[in-house]
Amino acid sequence: MLVSALLTSVLINSGLCVLLWALYSSLRKRPDNYRVYAPRLLAECNSRAIDTFRLERLLSTPSWVARAWQTSEEELLSSAGLDAVVFRRLITFSLRVITVAGVIGVFILLPVNFSGDQLHDVDFANLTSNSLDIFTISNVKDGSNRLWVHFGAVYVVTIFTCFLLYNEFKYVSSKRISYFLTSKPQPGQFTILVRSVPVSRCGSVSDSVERFFREYHPNTYLSHVVIRRTSKVRHLVNDGKRMYRRLIDLRKERCAVKSQHGGLCGLFRRQSDIVNDYERKLEELEENVRLGQSEASLAGEEVRAAFVSFKTRYGATIAIRMQQVDDPTHWVTEAAPEPHDVYWPFFSESFIRRWVSQLVVLVAYISITLLFLIPVVIVQGLTNLSQLQAWLPPLKDFLKEPFVHQVITGYLPSLILLFFLWLIPHIMKFLSSAQGYISHSEIIRSACNKFLWFTIWNVYFGNVLSGSVFNQIYTFLEPANVPSRLAVAVPAQFINVYSPKYDTAGKFWPIVHNSMIFSLLLMHAIAVGIFTLKKISLASSLLFPLPIVTLIFNSYCRKRFLPNFNAYSAETLIEKDRKDLNNASTAEFFNKLSSAYQDPALLPVRYSAAPDEETAPLLSSTETEGDGIS
Amino acid sequence: MLVSALLTSVLINSGLCVLLWALYSSLRKRPDNYRVYAPRLLAECNSRAIDTFRLERLLSTPSWVARAWQTSEEELLSSAGLDAVVFRRLITFSLRVITVAGVIGVFILLPVNFSGDQLHDVDFANLTSNSLDIFTISNVKDGSNRLWVHFGAVYVVTIFTCFLLYNEFKYVSSKRISYFLTSKPQPGQFTILVRSVPVSRCGSVSDSVERFFREYHPNTYLSHVVIRRTSKVRHLVNDGKRMYRRLIDLRKERCAVKSQHGGLCGLFRRQSDIVNDYERKLEELEENVRLGQSEASLAGEEVRAAFVSFKTRYGATIAIRMQQVDDPTHWVTEAAPEPHDVYWPFFSESFIRRWVSQLVVLVAYISITLLFLIPVVIVQGLTNLSQLQAWLPPLKDFLKEPFVHQVITGYLPSLILLFFLWLIPHIMKFLSSAQGYISHSEIIRSACNKFLWFTIWNVYFGNVLSGSVFNQIYTFLEPANVPSRLAVAVPAQFINVYSPKYDTAGKFWPIVHNSMIFSLLLMHAIAVGIFTLKKISLASSLLFPLPIVTLIFNSYCRKRFLPNFNAYSAETLIEKDRKDLNNASTAEFFNKLSSAYQDPALLPVRYSAAPDEETAPLLSSTETEGDGIS
Repeated sequence: MLVSALLTSVLINSGLCVLLWALYSSLRKRPDNYRVYAPRLLAECNSRAIDTFRLERLLSTPSWVARAWQTSEEELLSSAGLDAVVFRRLITFSLRVITVAGVIGVFILLPVNFSGDQLHDVDFANLTSNSLDIFTISNVKDGSNRLWVHFGAVYVVTIFTCFLLYNEFKYVSSKRISYFLTSKPQPGQFTILVRSVPVSRCGSVSDSVERFFREYHPNTYLSHVVIRRTSKVRHLVNDGKRMYRRLIDLRKERCAVKSQHGGLCGLFRRQSDIVNDYERKLEELEENVRLGQSEASLAGEEVRAAFVSFKTRYGATIAIRMQQVDDPTHWVTEAAPEPHDVYWPFFSESFIRRWVSQLVVLVAYISITLLFLIPVVIVQGLTNLSQLQAWLPPLKDFLKEPFVHQVITGYLPSLILLFFLWLIPHIMKFLSSAQGYISHSEIIRSACNKFLWFTIWNVYFGNVLSGSVFNQIYTFLEPANVPSRLAVAVPAQFINVYSPKYDTAGKFWPIVHNSMIFSLLLMHAIAVGIFTLKKISLASSLLFPLPIVTLIFNSYCRKRFLPNFNAYSAETLIEKDRKDLNNASTAEFFNKLSSAYQDPALLPVRYSAAPDEETAPLLSSTETEGDGIS
Repeated sequence: MLVSALLTSVLINSGLCVLLWALYSSLRKRPDNYRVYAPRLLAECNSRAIDTFRLERLLSTPSWVARAWQTSEEELLSSAGLDAVVFRRLITFSLRVITVAGVIGVFILLPVNFSGDQLHDVDFANLTSNSLDIFTISNVKDGSNRLWVHFGAVYVVTIFTCFLLYNEFKYVSSKRISYFLTSKPQPGQFTILVRSVPVSRCGSVSDSVERFFREYHPNTYLSHVVIRRTSKVRHLVNDGKRMYRRLIDLRKERCAVKSQHGGLCGLFRRQSDIVNDYERKLEELEENVRLGQSEASLAGEEVRAAFVSFKTRYGATIAIRMQQVDDPTHWVTEAAPEPHDVYWPFFSESFIRRWVSQLVVLVAYISITLLFLIPVVIVQGLTNLSQLQAWLPPLKDFLKEPFVHQVITGYLPSLILLFFLWLIPHIMKFLSSAQGYISHSEIIRSACNKFLWFTIWNVYFGNVLSGSVFNQIYTFLEPANVPSRLAVAVPAQFINVYSPKYDTAGKFWPIVHNSMIFSLLLMHAIAVGIFTLKKISLASSLLFPLPIVTLIFNSYCRKRFLPNFNAYSAETLIEKDRKDLNNASTAEFFNKLSSAYQDPALLPVRYSAAPDEETAPLLSSTETEGDGIS
């Protein structure tokens, strides 16, 4: 690459950046776009009678970037939850690392490289036509003492990054605890999920759960909800949802016909008939749903799993931590997600089935990650016309046409790659849900982790195997995307746009930490390789302790901070429980707790009510279900 | 190796076996040897007035082998504990595997190999002068279909072994639980060890422990014992022990002088003076020990660790399972060993120090395992005389003497190897105690594990690197030794000789299981290699699923049975606690519990009492301490 090419690229990108920023800043001012750019503010203004003045004040100034960053941590915490706070810290953390590495790179390493003469002397008269290589370490003479500057840079960047990592891990970990201590009572804090409930031949799952917890947790057990198979009802509810949407569209069409052609023409009558027909069908469906629901909740097949609620958080945590019976494949306990975070259509209730599906998912994941090279190789074939002609001899003449040639070698490869890359996150999400995770947040977290290692494998290692075509992938797959994937629930516009569906309280931080440690180790490996190539083997040897110390550092961080990402301590749980004792609202909370884990497919539905209010929640019962992967 | 050589070897070993058996069977009959062969029986006969008839009846018949095996499991359990039962199962398990593998090998594989003709035709006329190779797979023709018999044998042996492994793991695991359920209350069941106790500047460790457990475990906390630094007192006690032994010897000498020369000669008077001198010194030392003990127990330096006892086993287990405070490096809890199993001179009380020592031990262990090749290579050099002459030119003439030559090349190498091999278990034990284990049983278990992998590395893998000299090591290091190391506390004569010092309730079984799985995987790898060399690659490919299925089998066994080797379930603990409620002796047990974890160095000692009773216990306070590694 030439210096001029780099400069051009920088110019174009900066121009695009300014343009998009200007467009956004002006578009968001228009009241028509409030619904797009500030739906949450709109919702908070509570009705269609918007306090326009306030909104305009909030949205119109182009200094929104500064304001987005000036939001205090407390403000962010209260409006968007701890995930948003942690996500913003992730961004500032990345900026800090990039700044330090950038300053060292530009002001120290670049001059060192530039002043080398391994490649050739620099043509100062025509600087832009020089190759970019003169700015890289390749230009430093083999065995030169200047390479020690690079050596120092590796140490400095590692130490600085580890220092930041330690502080951030410590901060997020302590923040999680104080967030928990100040939180209102949440059903998930008092509830566990029990799977593989053994059932006697004549008894029900519910009897079995009741008996067991009354026997072994008599002082803390509160209530339980057995999970039932509701897939039939769920399908009916979804059908209704689709039908209701269609009905609303039809009503709109009818209104349009009426206003254009008056109420008497044949078109209007025909439309009215269709609408009436749909309304009748929907009512029938509603009746079917109701029947199905009562059938499922009374006589539906019980799954051998239940949500069990306790009187104290400490009691619930003990039930999670202890092995319940001698056979560890029975009465398997885990923390329950919050009710709206439950991924209902899950249940592989038996230990063996879950274990087998975990194995299958592991094999599938490894296969997909490795086999992704196949489409890549095919795409590489496409960029090579003569290869393509050899594959498809009948199309030889057709392929020679200049336009076809350009499309196939220039456009098609990217399109195919994009298609495969678009597939991957969906596949990862599907794998994670098949693995037996029971909450949306865990499924997303696990899918992000899978996607991260998929990316690392294919970009860093696949690159070595398959070469140039990966430059194309790199633009879509770059690691910088990972935080945005991670932040599916907490995108940059935390405050105005999204209302977070769940809050993991920064539980994704360990993924960030692990991938940073991995990057450091990769840097060390590359540095050792380069110093060896550059014939300064003392530097290679002196670098060896660095990855080992980094791994020890990582092991310490995991021992010190990771436990707080899985569970809270006895001290914290007991303190929190004791505070509740003096709280008047606790009794009310416990009343609601027993019905908190109700399958949304079994909640009452009414499609026909308020038929023209487009903005009303469509179907409360499918709110959660709709996000799932079926 | 020739067939004749093998036959000779078999004959010699069988002869030795019969001879030793005959010697043992006759020697143990002599009443003089009862003390050696049946000390436990003697002790049970309660005094020196032995019920000689009963002992003779027990010891005299040569059918002791049969009787040793006829002992029922219940009998063994009651007299020697669960460890002995599990150890006997280990032996029968090994015999079963060896029998099946042996039958397949001798009656199926050997004829197949023998009938091959890859090497050369068998000289039936002079069978014993044939090479043993004709009995091995090398003699089967490359690519021959007969190799499929070997293929089948690998599958059959694997399936049979896994079947046995599953049953044994299941049996030991369930036996552990029933053993626990029928056990008397033991202090270790109700007690935990807490380390890294944070202390305020003015308060003591004891206050801190008391306050913490009264606050967060108010219903189950019973009492605690803070550990103190007692190394000075312990040294004094040990000095006293040595001095007391010397005194007894001196007294004996004095008696001998008296009976030989009469009471008046100078020799007797001199002896008496020395004895009196020793007695005075011992009394002084005894006084010092008493002073040191009272000083240590009143104002001695407190270690930031304590044994904390609870009212219920369930309460203790909860305290072990839960993270106590937000900082997981404080209030680190673990199960306490039984009082007589505690390894007192341990304490690395801080989290960081323990963690660092674990890292150091890991590095030391890996270094020792790898560097063991150095003495091996040196020994290899010794067997080569010309090499030795090159190393030590001044000794050239000396080395040429035939006797010196024979000693150095024949005897010295084995001696040096034996010396190093004798060192290894001691080093492993030292490493395990440095690692922070706090009980003799855990130190031994961990040392056995280390020794096992040391053996596997050096015998299996080192062999490939260093060749022939390892044949010598192999005779000392063979894996068959491992069970005997494991059984340090449960040697074959469970019933008559040793009274077990501690009972881990078969906690070592997972080591056996893991090493069997490892052996199976090694067998698969070797089989794949051989089938590839023998040009029957389909067999190699069809073998690939076997190690994977074996690993999955192992993973299932670990999930299903391993948890019961670390802790008991809530159900079991609560049942056991409830049974105690109706037991009259429980109150008495709890009274004793608070003083059960007393450092033996702080127990009262009396050296001077009963000065001539050789058989009295020497020093009750050093009974436990004496076994440790200082």
